[in-house]
Order: sequence, then C-alpha cells, then structure tokens
Amino acid sequence: METISEQRCFGGMQGFYRHESRACDGPMAFAVYVPPQAAHAKLPVLYYLAGLTCTPETFPVKAGAQRVAAQLGLILVAPDTSPRDTGIEGAIGDWEFGEGAGFYVDATRAPWSSRFRMETYVTEELPALIAENFPADGQRRGIMGHSMGGHGALTLALRHPGRYRSLSALAPICSPTRVPWGERRIFAMYFGEDRTEWRSHDACELLRDGARFDGEILVDQGGSDPFLQEQLRPEFLETACSETGQPLRLRMQAGYDHSYWFVQSFIEDHLRHHMQALRN
Amino acid sequence: METISEQRCFGGMQGFYRHESRACDGPMAFAVYVPPQAAHAKLPVLYYLAGLTCTPETFPVKAGAQRVAAQLGLILVAPDTSPRDTGIEGAIGDWEFGEGAGFYVDATRAPWSSRFRMETYVTEELPALIAENFPADGQRRGIMGHSMGGHGALTLALRHPGRYRSLSALAPICSPTRVPWGERRIFAMYFGEDRTEWRSHDACELLRDGARFDGEILVDQGGSDPFLQEQLRPEFLETACSETGQPLRLRMQAGYDHSYWFVQSFIEDHLRHHMQALRN
Repeated sequence: METISEQRCFGGMQGFYRHESRACDGPMAFAVYVPPQAAHAKLPVLYYLAGLTCTPETFPVKAGAQRVAAQLGLILVAPDTSPRDTGIEGAIGDWEFGEGAGFYVDATRAPWSSRFRMETYVTEELPALIAENFPADGQRRGIMGHSMGGHGALTLALRHPGRYRSLSALAPICSPTRVPWGERRIFAMYFGEDRTEWRSHDACELLRDGARFDGEILVDQGGSDPFLQEQLRPEFLETACSETGQPLRLRMQAGYDHSYWFVQSFIEDHLRHHMQALRN
Repeated sequence: METISEQRCFGGMQGFYRHESRACDGPMAFAVYVPPQAAHAKLPVLYYLAGLTCTPETFPVKAGAQRVAAQLGLILVAPDTSPRDTGIEGAIGDWEFGEGAGFYVDATRAPWSSRFRMETYVTEELPALIAENFPADGQRRGIMGHSMGGHGALTLALRHPGRYRSLSALAPICSPTRVPWGERRIFAMYFGEDRTEWRSHDACELLRDGARFDGEILVDQGGSDPFLQEQLRPEFLETACSETGQPLRLRMQAGYDHSYWFVQSFIEDHLRHHMQALRN
C-alpha cells in the first residue's frame, strides 16, 4: 500500500492511498479518515460508496463527514467507483458506464469480468487491507452510499448478511432492474441477458427473494432530485420493505437535489445512525 | 446579476452568480450562501477571501461553513480571487501572480490597473450588489480570509475603519512587504517601486502607521504549514499587534498544514467569532 498524502483534519488524519488490487487486477485508489480516538483504541469503520463519475476524493472533499467522525470516533473509508485506466474498449467516455460506474458488482461478461469486480473488492479485499494498515475493529463495520453507491450499499449489505452492522443510503438507485441506469446499460453490459443475475443485484428483488438486513435502513431522498422519477424510485424500496417486513426509515427532504449540497446537509444524521449500531 | 445555480443546502440556499463589474471592468463570479433565517429577517454578512489559485467555488465546496452559517443565521459571500480572462500578457500561467492572485488591491501600474481592482470590488461594489439582491443587513458585515485572502481581510479591515465589525484570518500572509509573495512579485508588479504604496497594503505596517481594528482579531495558523517560515510569518503580526496595542488572538495549531483540511477544522470557531460581533 502506497501513501499518496496524509493531512491533519479535525484532530485526525485524512489520507489518500493506492495499492495493487487482486480483485480488480490493477491499481486502486481509496481514501481513509482516521479520527483522533484511534490513538487509544481500535475503531469501527464506515464504508462510503460514491455515485457515478465520483473518485475517492469526492466524499472526503465534499461531504463534510470528518467533523462528525472525529466526534464519534469512526473511521471513514471511501473507495473509488471502479478500476481506472483499464484500457477496455468503451470503458471511458460515457459517464453512465464503465470507469467511474462500476455499480459495485462483479461483472461476469467479458471483457468487463477481468477488471470490474467491485463487489469482491469492496466486501473482501479492501476490508482486509484496512484491517492490516489502520486501527480498525474488523467486527464493527457499516456501509452507506449515494446514488449508484446507495444501490451498492443496499445490495452489498443484503447479499452479505452479517458483514455490516449498519446500513444507510442517500438518494440510492433503489431498483436498478426497473430503471434505465440498470436495465438498458449496466446489467446488460456487465452481466449479459441473464435476468436471474440482474435480480440478485436489485435491493428490492433481493428483499422479495428473502434477504433481510438486521436493523433499520436509513434512506434520505431529495424531493427536487432530477433523477427521482426516472432512476431512483424510492417508492419501490418502500413497497418492497413494507411487503417483506424490512425496517426502513425513508425521509423525503423537500427542495433538495442530487448533489453534495444535499449529501452534506444530512451526512451527520447518517454517521450518527451508523454509530448507534457500531458503538459496541 | 445572473444566477448560475442555486441549490438547497442545510435548509438554506447555496448560489453561484455572475455580474458585470465596473471596478474590474468585466465579468466577475461570486458565491453566496443564504441561511434559512433569511425568510424572516435581514441577516449579517461574512465576506470570505480565498487564497492563491482559488475560485468562488473553493470556499463553498471545501470549507464546510454552510452548516454553521445555517445555525447562526449568517450570509456567506465568497468573491473570486481576481478578474478572469483579462487577456493581459502575463496574467495567466503563473499561480502566484495575475489571475487567481489579485491580492485584494487596486493595482496602480499599467496594464494591471485597468482590471485588477479587487479592493474597490470587495469593499464597495460587491457589498452594494449583495445589499440589492440578498436579504442582507448592510450595517452588519464581517471579513475573513485564508492565506492571500487572510492578507486581504486584515488589510481591507485596517484600511477601511468602521466597514467591518469583525475580522479573522486563517494562515494569512501577515507582512507581504517582507516576504517573497509580496516583495518580489505582487507589489512590484501591481504598484511598481513606490514603497509607500506597498506599506499601505501590509497589515503590520498599517498597524505601525496607526490603523486599528475595533475588536479582537482571530488568527489560526497551522504549525506544519509549508509556507509558514517563508511567506506567512505570523510572528510579524504578533509583534506589530503587541507593539501597537491591537487585540489579537493568534492560535498555533500543531500538525495542520495550509490546506482546506486545516480550514474546515477551524471554520466553526471563526464563524462563531464573527457572529459575536455581528449578532446585534
């Protein structure tokens, strides 16, 4: 693991790092905020999955989460949104697909399957690296995300029961099999036409197929989000949770859009939601 | 005045705007955060002057100040650091001079004197525009800045007694006549060799020449700031304040550098410092 930079922030340290990933068969960058409490104890870790086009810098720079993490004693980890410089044809130039749009799945279709293995990266390889290099308590782990990363957080937590003690999302893509971002592009490209595979990466379908998260899921959604009607569809998640008995707290936030002006406005509530479950 | 964007943030509105500036003889961009309290009252305004290379986006995106402004009921205004697209030879390509490096002075030397008139812009034209277009109380005005903008805040407040009720700086250039950023470049280029003019844009010399700020000046300085020894020199300000009886609270913050990881770590203290003086 190579340190790109480490800088003091709210008494802790904001760092950016790079390493050779086995899962993604190439270099991956990520960000870690370590709060001041790490001098005295192993701390819980919150993974933040970002949305389309984002990098490991987006969340640390724009979300204003370090202040709260420094109060709570929470390590924040922000991976990249895909492998980079893959050289795969079609992987760059389209902001909704390929690099910057890994969708937190392990692609099964060539050529994507060789590099785009973000599920294994986020759920296995990166936590092992964090445990090895940071003062992290490997048993206390939460996951959240924004937009595509909200989809990632919901599906990874539902697909890997027991791996995450806390779960939340900001403006998540709630049911990718039924919206253009999933249907027409990502799933067809990363998985081909096997709709059974698609179904197992859709939070709503996972719930219907019996997956549960052991705890309440917190979701905030901006009421003036331009992607609300076509891509995000929180009402699908509400219905799926209601039908399956999955505890969900869905809050519609009037006037907010899809940006980090929205994310930063509610990030404190999310970190506190996670810390409730991660405290002990 | 043209609205570039307005987005909900912490219950208020983060906006970006553009207008034709008389002072700078061309278009100028700026950012304004209006907190939710503006629905009911005219609010005090805090001007934030950014450092070398920064734009009107830097402070809103990186400093995390909106959360505190929304608590306190404070309007935040962030101007650009110079006019842009001036076409003046030598105005771009050097991060320490020209565009992005206006130093908050009115240049007296051609060709800079036609466009680089940031002192008039920040102290007169922009406040008038803000009063006209936002729910601002024109009597309650504070000023702060970072690095070059810290120099700007200190000198503008000292040069315009009574215009600002509160003053603070983060890692300011304290005595530009005695450091490379001022001496060899800015002052020689914007003013020529007239050292009397230089002296009147140096916070320490202004104090020695009798200027006072009516209130305590708050200054935070990172102890691991790479510019500390050569360019910032807070000890010069400390000595000048001590010799002249100007109240100063200078806080050295161990381990912090010059970045917005530092700025965001102490921004809340600064906003609260300003609000003390701006409350009534």
